[in-house]
Amino acid sequence: MSKIFKNYPEIMDELEDVKKIMKKSIRSSEKYFDEAISPMINNGGKLLRPGFLVLSGKFGDYEKDRFNNLAAVIELLHMATLVHDDIIDESNLRRNTESIQSKYGKEYAVYTGDYLFSQCLIMLSEYDYDRENLKNISKVISKICLGEIKQFNFRYATNMNFRKYVRVASGKTAALFSLSLFVGAKESKCEESITKTFAKIGYNIGMAFQIIDDLLDYKGDNKSLGKEAQRDLIKGYYTLPLIFAINEDKNDGIKSILNKDMLDNNDIEKIIKLVNKYEGVKKARNVAKKYTFRAYDNIEKLPECKWKNVIKEIAKGLLERKY
Amino acid sequence: MSKIFKNYPEIMDELEDVKKIMKKSIRSSEKYFDEAISPMINNGGKLLRPGFLVLSGKFGDYEKDRFNNLAAVIELLHMATLVHDDIIDESNLRRNTESIQSKYGKEYAVYTGDYLFSQCLIMLSEYDYDRENLKNISKVISKICLGEIKQFNFRYATNMNFRKYVRVASGKTAALFSLSLFVGAKESKCEESITKTFAKIGYNIGMAFQIIDDLLDYKGDNKSLGKEAQRDLIKGYYTLPLIFAINEDKNDGIKSILNKDMLDNNDIEKIIKLVNKYEGVKKARNVAKKYTFRAYDNIEKLPECKWKNVIKEIAKGLLERKY
Repeated sequence: MSKIFKNYPEIMDELEDVKKIMKKSIRSSEKYFDEAISPMINNGGKLLRPGFLVLSGKFGDYEKDRFNNLAAVIELLHMATLVHDDIIDESNLRRNTESIQSKYGKEYAVYTGDYLFSQCLIMLSEYDYDRENLKNISKVISKICLGEIKQFNFRYATNMNFRKYVRVASGKTAALFSLSLFVGAKESKCEESITKTFAKIGYNIGMAFQIIDDLLDYKGDNKSLGKEAQRDLIKGYYTLPLIFAINEDKNDGIKSILNKDMLDNNDIEKIIKLVNKYEGVKKARNVAKKYTFRAYDNIEKLPECKWKNVIKEIAKGLLERKY
Repeated sequence: MSKIFKNYPEIMDELEDVKKIMKKSIRSSEKYFDEAISPMINNGGKLLRPGFLVLSGKFGDYEKDRFNNLAAVIELLHMATLVHDDIIDESNLRRNTESIQSKYGKEYAVYTGDYLFSQCLIMLSEYDYDRENLKNISKVISKICLGEIKQFNFRYATNMNFRKYVRVASGKTAALFSLSLFVGAKESKCEESITKTFAKIGYNIGMAFQIIDDLLDYKGDNKSLGKEAQRDLIKGYYTLPLIFAINEDKNDGIKSILNKDMLDNNDIEKIIKLVNKYEGVKKARNVAKKYTFRAYDNIEKLPECKWKNVIKEIAKGLLERKY
């Protein structure tokens, strides 16, 4: 279960309920769907997106069933994108368990993702949700697709730059964070200035989250040092620490390694050393800080209530996380 | 453009409009999506599903923009499933043009299908459609996934039988036909007995349609004789003509060929001959007739209007088609 929200029992209780709704929603006449999807739900992930929806919902009229169903939709949507991403990335592991594409094959993973999407739609039609929310949810799914496809198209591009990185991260990650906080606030009937502020908070936390995710790949503990960066490098995903290092590296040492047909362990080691030499991780962390500080500024604008500080603590925790 | 509706200019006009809406809806910042999807729209397919929605809509209050947008959603949903199916089937051709998975790769096809789904959601949130329709659309997407996955799981099963075949066809095809006629009638405010009748008509026409599709694979003109059946047999999709033939073939001649590790042209030829010997195609056609006659009976229950006979003519045309 989520570590992020562990100090907030009221949120944890809702998330337990959200998990139950998710488990119920995936049941079908096809026994393998349940078998395939259940481990992803049980091994949990951080449940950040539904947690954020619950949190912003607490700023207005929180109707338990209606909100937890919507929070479950947001997490299932996220899972649907993960299942499809694992096909593209040929990832074998997801949430510490074998990925669906690896265990059941790519064909099965295509349909499992589609099935998750369809269950989300069914759940959305079960309550009379705000139409603007439905529109926003649809638009964000579209943005996620576009973000993922951009990331795919930018692979192996040594002219990858900050602007392109932001476009990818904003589509594949920040959009859904932003949506989660927005939807919760909107559905709980917060006034427009508040829902808009939540959308900004979510965007900034989401951008920081993705940057930290990417820079952790270049750090890691001794055992896994560089393992993730290695995977990303081999797949041609060039993230912020590397982008900064390439910019500083006037001799094009990194580029010349990346331009090789195949990277071996020695190449990867050299790249990681150069990324550290040019302070790519430090520079990326500074950008994540900047986004988090922007989120803090937005959080200040929220009405006073006990949840205001909780959001700030969580943004801080996500910036400082080591996993 | 659709041949099926060519004698009905009022329907053709609406379908022209539906195509325009579809083309507009797929535009995005990702230039390849447009490039990838446009040929599928331009080369048209039969536009049966949106055509049916338009037709049943004509039985009540037809609001052009609202209806044609919904008809476009139904066709885009259908296209999304085709794009994903082509990944699973590794099909190289779709609507007489190279399939997306073949031209742009499987990765791209996964995201293109997802993008089409997301555009459908956006379009659905643009009008205040009947909530029961939204729920039904979601449930049918789920049924299509389950139908496709069943078909996938039943591959190479020589104990494939009529009951299992009906479950697959009903999920992957009849459900969307049924939905199209139902949604049009419901949205045009037809009374409940009529919308229910339309759902039945759609189901029966859809079942007949799928059976005819499958038996045409075993017929074809001289040039392509058996080509499609060959493809299906190699992929392990055993359809109704073959199922009937296996049942009649008491010596298990067909089964023993199917149980071989690899089928060569000679094997395929033998199977097709045996299917004809045991009158598999004829028997399958009789089942398609039975479904079409059931549709006729349901059509009789519709209120008198000029469109009533049109639906009957189209059901007849679909039963008798040779392509």
